[in-house]
Formats: sequence, C-alpha cells, structure tokens
Amino acid sequence: MAEVAPIRIEDPSDPRIAAFMSIKERDLTGRQGRFIAEGTVVLRLLAAAHRAGRGITAEAILLLENRLAGLAELLAEFPADVPVFVADARVFDAIAGFNMHRGVLALGRSDAVPDRDALIAALPASSLVLAACGLSNHDNMGSLFRNAAAFGVDAVLMDAASCDPMYRKSIRVSVGSVLTLPFARQGTAAELIERLHAAGFAIWGLSPRGETEVTEIPPAQRVALLVGTEGEGLPQAVLSAVRTARIRQRPGLDSLNVAMAAGIALHEVARINGRI
Amino acid sequence: MAEVAPIRIEDPSDPRIAAFMSIKERDLTGRQGRFIAEGTVVLRLLAAAHRAGRGITAEAILLLENRLAGLAELLAEFPADVPVFVADARVFDAIAGFNMHRGVLALGRSDAVPDRDALIAALPASSLVLAACGLSNHDNMGSLFRNAAAFGVDAVLMDAASCDPMYRKSIRVSVGSVLTLPFARQGTAAELIERLHAAGFAIWGLSPRGETEVTEIPPAQRVALLVGTEGEGLPQAVLSAVRTARIRQRPGLDSLNVAMAAGIALHEVARINGRI
Repeated sequence: MAEVAPIRIEDPSDPRIAAFMSIKERDLTGRQGRFIAEGTVVLRLLAAAHRAGRGITAEAILLLENRLAGLAELLAEFPADVPVFVADARVFDAIAGFNMHRGVLALGRSDAVPDRDALIAALPASSLVLAACGLSNHDNMGSLFRNAAAFGVDAVLMDAASCDPMYRKSIRVSVGSVLTLPFARQGTAAELIERLHAAGFAIWGLSPRGETEVTEIPPAQRVALLVGTEGEGLPQAVLSAVRTARIRQRPGLDSLNVAMAAGIALHEVARINGRI
Repeated sequence: MAEVAPIRIEDPSDPRIAAFMSIKERDLTGRQGRFIAEGTVVLRLLAAAHRAGRGITAEAILLLENRLAGLAELLAEFPADVPVFVADARVFDAIAGFNMHRGVLALGRSDAVPDRDALIAALPASSLVLAACGLSNHDNMGSLFRNAAAFGVDAVLMDAASCDPMYRKSIRVSVGSVLTLPFARQGTAAELIERLHAAGFAIWGLSPRGETEVTEIPPAQRVALLVGTEGEGLPQAVLSAVRTARIRQRPGLDSLNVAMAAGIALHEVARINGRI
C-alpha cells in the first residue's frame, strides 16, 4: 500500500494546484492531453487506468479535507508519487466550487492518441462496437460510454466531427467509462464505415426510419451499432451505406434521445449475441 | 387562424416581460404555478395543452426577432389573446440569455393540481404507469417523461419526495412531455404502491438485484414500473412490497442511469403488452 502524505493548500492561488483553478468555467479538455476526473467512482477508474499503463496517468489529486479520511483505501490505489492536495471548504470552493465537485478531484493526462485502424485491428473475433458520427453533446457522449460499458462494448469509434470524450462533463456522465473503454475519434463517417465493413462487421445504423427492429437484429460475430447527431440523426448517405434498425415507439413524437436509443439498442444486441 | 400582433420590447427591464427575466438563475418553478417552456417543439406541445383545456395555459411568448417569421404557423396555434413579445439579440440576451434558449420562450401557468387517486381512478382498463420515488434530479425527471411518452405510458406517478417536473429544465429535457402526460406527485411511496395494488396493477420495481429480467415481465392488463432515486435506487422496504425486475448488464460496474434503466424497461414492457 502506497503511503499518502497529503499536502495542505491554504491559498487558492497556490501554483501547485493551478491546474484545478476554475475548472467549471474553463471546461478543461485536450490541452496537452490534460483532463479532470470528479468523484470517487471516477477516481477509482482513473487509478485502474493508471495502473493499466496504456497512456493514461494521474498527475494530482485535490480533496476537500473532510473527505480525506474516508478515501485512504482509494488513495492507496495510486502510486505514491501522485501528489494529494487537501484544502478546507473555503479554499476548495475558491479553487473549483465545492457543490460542483463534491470535494473529490483529480488531474489526469492522456498520452495515447488512439488510432482508429489499430484499434479495429486489435478487436477480438467476437466484438461489439459502438460507432458515432457528428455527436456534439458532451452529456450524450458520456452517457453513450456509460451504456457501452454496461453492455460490454469492446470499443467506441467516432468520426472527427464528434466531440471529445475526455471533456470534463463527458467523463463525469460516463462515470469514468471514458477512461477505461478503448476509443478512437478520427476521420469521416464514410471511412469508419468502410474500415468496419472491411473488418467483417455487420453495421447497423439506428434511425426512426430503420428497416429492422432492434429486437430482430440477427446475431453475428462482429456487430457495430452506429448512431448519429442529436436532432438530425444519421445522414442519408450514411444510412444508405449500412443496414438500418429502429426502436418501436409511439408515433408522432420527437425521437428518443440519442444516448437513450443507443442504450436500448445495445441492450438488445448484447442480449442477442450473449454478451450480457 | 389567430392574428398575431407582436409587441416589440426595447428595454430588458420592461415590466411586461418581467416574468422572463433571468430565468436561468431563478430556475422558475411552482411559483403561482408558473413555468417556462423553451424551444419550438415544447411550444407546440404547450399550445396543444392549452387547447386541451385541462388547466395548462400559455400566458406570454417571447421571441428573438429573427425567429418570428419562421414561427407564424406555430404562433397561430395559440389564442390571439396570448401576447407575443419580440426583442433583438441584445435585449433578448439581457432578458434570458440567447444561447440558453435559442430565442424561443413561453411563460405558462398550471392551475390543475393533479390528484393521484383521481388520476389512478381515471386510468383505462389496459394501462401502463411509470412510478418514481425520491427522484431528485431534474434532468432525469425530464428524461423519464420523454421515455414515458415514447413508450405509451398513461400516467407518471411520483411520491412527494420526488422533484417537480414543471421545473424549467425538466420540461426542456422532456421535450414538452411534462405538459401533455398526466402526472401526480403526492404522498409516500408506500401509499402509492398500496393504491396501485388496489387498482389491480402488477407493480415491478427496477433494481440491479431484481429477480425477473425485464424481458421476462409477463404481460398484464395493468402494469406499473417503479424506479428509485439516483445512486441509492429503491429502498428495501419498497422492494419487499413489489415484484422486482433487473436489466442484464456487465457485472462490476456502476448501475445504469435511472432514466436509461426506465427507458430500457419501458421499451420491453410496452412491447410485451403490445402498446407500441
């Protein structure tokens, strides 16, 4: 068990915790690969990702002082050279906003730039992939990852037009799944579809006008479920290049939220293929 | 078609649009039954609710001037005595924040205080109810309503510990379903369960430790799906009083988000009972 010697911060402008300053406003993402992890569940997954040694490292931890005692076990999962800063409520609030973050924060760094084609090449013979094009909402992105983890997805693949999953809010909504699920965000939707086809994937685009009900998607060794932007959904050019699936619902309403639709479809596909 | 004569607002402090001031910060809800509707889809449902005459009325509409032309048809769905205010970007922004609301807002009033038992008594012989206890997150509340509408739920019933669905953000996330789906928020979870049992409902509590898979819930004339608080889920006392159902997922992870779990379960139950 690593020994944890917390460093007390008395001044919100202390340069040692500068990276945590005003993270709510700054929406820290992607800058030199830095990201913010919030809450104990996400911190646990950060520790796991750090130990796994695939390019994600923890750089510093910042805790509200009264959280320290209850987190000894979790802190011991991090290497001893990851500094643990503690601050009282006034200082913590001035740094990051207590109500926002419940007193548990970590700064992480991602050095791996995951390559889509390498990721596809490394997938097991029996695989489930979640693919997305043009997904621009960070909440939905986080929710997609949370669902993907729950239903045993092997990798999340996005086009370059999709937003960055390493954004603070996506990580939080994903409950840390962004840190543990392999993903790549690269190229166009057309390229992604072509690569998945070449790798033997049956690709199913989700659309309210899809031809097959999600409950009737036939089992296959390699299945990719593809979702589109909020509002618009998948463009016609994409829908023409794949098979299409729909979720039955009452007519005349706005379609389901994209993350909700993906969750329902993943649940079905994972059951059909015996993955859960 | 009602004739629309928009009233130009030049001063953000004009008392006629006082109800719209700083709605982001004030989180308008429940005060004299007032609520805020945002965006064209929600406005359309507000117009429908107003015409239905069940206690929901539109009081005023506030538009960014460049949205006016495109909305003539929608505005005509409101009675002519509902004032339509327009403002330019600078004024609109000072009132309500343009980026937040995309230039389309309405103020509504709800005079109906829906009574749980009256609502249960009025349900059709074949019914699907979504019930919630202790649901405190407004996003999840809105998402529950959106799913409930998509899968043909007849009423949403909540205990008094659940948050108010008429809160601005819930209405927005529900894409207006809060304005059209009958709901009641009253009493304890125990009372709610007792009333639903008495009305012949098979009540299924969703829990990661549930006994029956959601895909195996037997068909029934009257089914109620019951969900609990974020994080904790349904308390043991509630789980002991109902039948329990689970969603299969990968072990060792945080459970699904409550709205996601409800969406997946509603999709299954609605299919099993031929409601979609």
